[in-house]
Amino acid sequence: MNLQTRILDIEIGKYEVILNRLDADEMGIRAGDRVKVRNIDSVTALVETSESMFQKGVIGVYKDVKQKLNLKGGEYVEISPALRPRSIPAIKKKMDKEKLSSEEIHAIIRDIVDGNLSDVELSAFVASSYIHGMDMDEIEWMTHAIVETGEKIVFDTHPIMDKHSIGGVPGNKISLIVVPIVAAAKLMIPKTSSRAITGAAGTADLMEVLAPVEFSASEIKRITEKVGGVIVWGGATNIAPADDKIVEAEYPLSLDPHAQLLASVMAKKYAVGADSVVIDIPTGTGTKIPSMMHGRKIARDFMELGERLRIRVECAVTYGASPVGRTIGPALEVREALKVLETMQGPMSLIEKSTNIAGILLEMGGVASKGLGKEAAASVLSSGKALEKLKEIIDSQGGNPKVTSSDIPVGDKTSNIEALATGYVIEFDNKGIVDIARAAGAPKDKGAGVQIHKKKGQYVEKAEPLITIYAEKEWKLSNAIKCAQREYPVVVEGMILERVEPAKEM
Amino acid sequence: MNLQTRILDIEIGKYEVILNRLDADEMGIRAGDRVKVRNIDSVTALVETSESMFQKGVIGVYKDVKQKLNLKGGEYVEISPALRPRSIPAIKKKMDKEKLSSEEIHAIIRDIVDGNLSDVELSAFVASSYIHGMDMDEIEWMTHAIVETGEKIVFDTHPIMDKHSIGGVPGNKISLIVVPIVAAAKLMIPKTSSRAITGAAGTADLMEVLAPVEFSASEIKRITEKVGGVIVWGGATNIAPADDKIVEAEYPLSLDPHAQLLASVMAKKYAVGADSVVIDIPTGTGTKIPSMMHGRKIARDFMELGERLRIRVECAVTYGASPVGRTIGPALEVREALKVLETMQGPMSLIEKSTNIAGILLEMGGVASKGLGKEAAASVLSSGKALEKLKEIIDSQGGNPKVTSSDIPVGDKTSNIEALATGYVIEFDNKGIVDIARAAGAPKDKGAGVQIHKKKGQYVEKAEPLITIYAEKEWKLSNAIKCAQREYPVVVEGMILERVEPAKEM
Repeated sequence: MNLQTRILDIEIGKYEVILNRLDADEMGIRAGDRVKVRNIDSVTALVETSESMFQKGVIGVYKDVKQKLNLKGGEYVEISPALRPRSIPAIKKKMDKEKLSSEEIHAIIRDIVDGNLSDVELSAFVASSYIHGMDMDEIEWMTHAIVETGEKIVFDTHPIMDKHSIGGVPGNKISLIVVPIVAAAKLMIPKTSSRAITGAAGTADLMEVLAPVEFSASEIKRITEKVGGVIVWGGATNIAPADDKIVEAEYPLSLDPHAQLLASVMAKKYAVGADSVVIDIPTGTGTKIPSMMHGRKIARDFMELGERLRIRVECAVTYGASPVGRTIGPALEVREALKVLETMQGPMSLIEKSTNIAGILLEMGGVASKGLGKEAAASVLSSGKALEKLKEIIDSQGGNPKVTSSDIPVGDKTSNIEALATGYVIEFDNKGIVDIARAAGAPKDKGAGVQIHKKKGQYVEKAEPLITIYAEKEWKLSNAIKCAQREYPVVVEGMILERVEPAKEM
Repeated sequence: MNLQTRILDIEIGKYEVILNRLDADEMGIRAGDRVKVRNIDSVTALVETSESMFQKGVIGVYKDVKQKLNLKGGEYVEISPALRPRSIPAIKKKMDKEKLSSEEIHAIIRDIVDGNLSDVELSAFVASSYIHGMDMDEIEWMTHAIVETGEKIVFDTHPIMDKHSIGGVPGNKISLIVVPIVAAAKLMIPKTSSRAITGAAGTADLMEVLAPVEFSASEIKRITEKVGGVIVWGGATNIAPADDKIVEAEYPLSLDPHAQLLASVMAKKYAVGADSVVIDIPTGTGTKIPSMMHGRKIARDFMELGERLRIRVECAVTYGASPVGRTIGPALEVREALKVLETMQGPMSLIEKSTNIAGILLEMGGVASKGLGKEAAASVLSSGKALEKLKEIIDSQGGNPKVTSSDIPVGDKTSNIEALATGYVIEFDNKGIVDIARAAGAPKDKGAGVQIHKKKGQYVEKAEPLITIYAEKEWKLSNAIKCAQREYPVVVEGMILERVEPAKEM
């Protein structure tokens, strides 16, 4: 059937067309089916139908199809029914709790990347993977599929080191310290990282305070070979593009399936050619990993997957029930991390964790003896070499290498949240703190965030500040204060949370 | 935040807007979140983001939002972050295999009808309901929710009778015979029916050969009160609109969850005020219900749900492994059904089934004694009163009441598929026959379909026709012939299906 095109100038991330219902009926096609759209080139597109948008004989073509076929609008294209992609029966199989084959998983991931699945189909895959899970074979195949449908970096020299922290603990700025220590110890560490999705600052958001973070795979390779490391935003590369699309479908229902976590993390490490990887697994109330038992289980799974991929993996199950350090939000966190690099001064939780993780990498990379990695990392840190290295990285990424912690601007709208009573801090709610930092503008407003004065177990006098909120804009500060008053994430013992009055006597 | 609107003239069935990524970041909003869009009125809309489609300060507004807020394009609207609907955590709960409450199910169904859920969210609900199922409480609540979010018919006199055939068996034209028998016996039967989705002809497709089928709920009431019955397309009413949207999300993965089937059927019966309902459950290879055991189970569930809804339900588990009658496709089926009404002549499978089902309804309606319903139905049929009644219904729906079976035009492009060998028909594949009829143009081309000459167990001589394909268009006939040659749905014993040659000797 020949139909005249009308361009819908909207990019929707998949190939889709809109048919008049009568034309669709004529071809025996329903919304959700596929058609082959052909002029010189051809593409298989999802079908929507409409009774009124276009008259019979006209086909609405979204921008993605337009670009693929180089359409101008107004020309005729040939439309014929097309089969569903092979990934559809594979998704149905997963819904029915059957194990998928390597080919089936590759077909699904390929179709996700190529924009061949509708949201309904993609969501059905995500939901059923969440519900039924995947076994280690399937996870391994998915990892390979995610790697193979994206770009890879091939380094000429090895070893390549890498680290990943599983999200969920606020203030986890350790990459800003770990990467320069490792690179200063003459190991290569091409660190791709993410921006915050539900958090207050991802490593990419932090680094962006110091330098640009959007680089191609070949630029990452070049800089890493030159200065030993990078800290960039993975989303700017075409590494593991399937992951971004899957994450988008997980976001509305806040899903974080185990299999997807493993495959996603390890695919990104595999794609940059990592030989040795440390996984930081923050554990405890308020994190993604509620208990040590869960932490150990996920550590074993990462190590098994690493073995299958021939990547050496070590895991560090870390304390995650409290923020790392005392700052949350891009500029505040960068300032804290720089201070540690400059002075070796700062919160123990940050210094300890950073040198521990860096130490494991030094041992795995063969530049520190077994058991002496942490000491070696601390000595690189205190020597000033890590600071020097970070400045080289900043310079290579196009930032100002002369930057110091006191240069970093933070929001000039501030407000203290004070203790309502004297006593010990008995509750400290990570999520509440993150909500406040986000309400204040993080991660978008780099200067927004929260400075923590009292952590769990500390003594505080009535009216002493528990936290200080920083914002760049007055209205966001005000939102953050409201959020703090509503959520009250830092609880002092003896504080009255709610006053319940006795019922009046009858 | 105030943004200037730009209209996207596309109706997408839900409230959705597109924000520039910078504006979204400023508000801390991601694709998949919600915003409140306010000018004079306000609406909560789903957010998509784009880096390039609109400049900062501009918001793309799909037609559904445009209409709801009466926008012209170019005006400013106020945008603020909005919470996710309450149905989202309920969907997550179902994913986690927890039982939903009545309130949660109502929230989900309400949000589905109101276009408040994205495809990803709707699909997650459909997938998890498919995977985890629902218990009878949840099914009852869902039935009520589907009824309450749509239009209802309240009849002044009772009883109201109804029937439903579960899909899956081709040629099941019995409603064209059952409804007039029941109405001729002075019972009211307002039959709403569906069009074929994957089949060759739904009851609505059949009736449309004889008369218009698109009527509002109040017209259905009026006609039923006048002549005792209607046969209309339910999709033209606003009865159970949730069902259509759920079916759309089930279609891409060919899902047909048990709970959804029960709730969907019974909601439609409940909404028309039915007191007594017969459910026809075609069972056997190639149907939705593979075995008698499954058939009995689903029958018990329908009856239990009926009790909860205070609707008397009886079920007939029927033979579904072969088509009902010998025709498939709208005009061919109507011709066969009319012939039965006119002459009481025709395939036993059709006459027996129709009088059986009608008989149960006559007994339930109190116009035939227990055990004598079938006889009573047969006598209404042979008396010519059922034919008379169908003509009244056709007349009331605006068709030609003088129509006879020989008037019905069928496709003039025909081709026989002949037996390749002499012997007994040992296989008869329902799905293959339906595929052929659809390739020939059914249900869109009313004259397209298949006439069956030999059913399972019958003797056939080589070169005798097994089936005749009818089409309205030459190219569709040719597609159907190819389909028949590929699928060969009627297998004669002794026929060679595939010739496997021996491997050449080494």
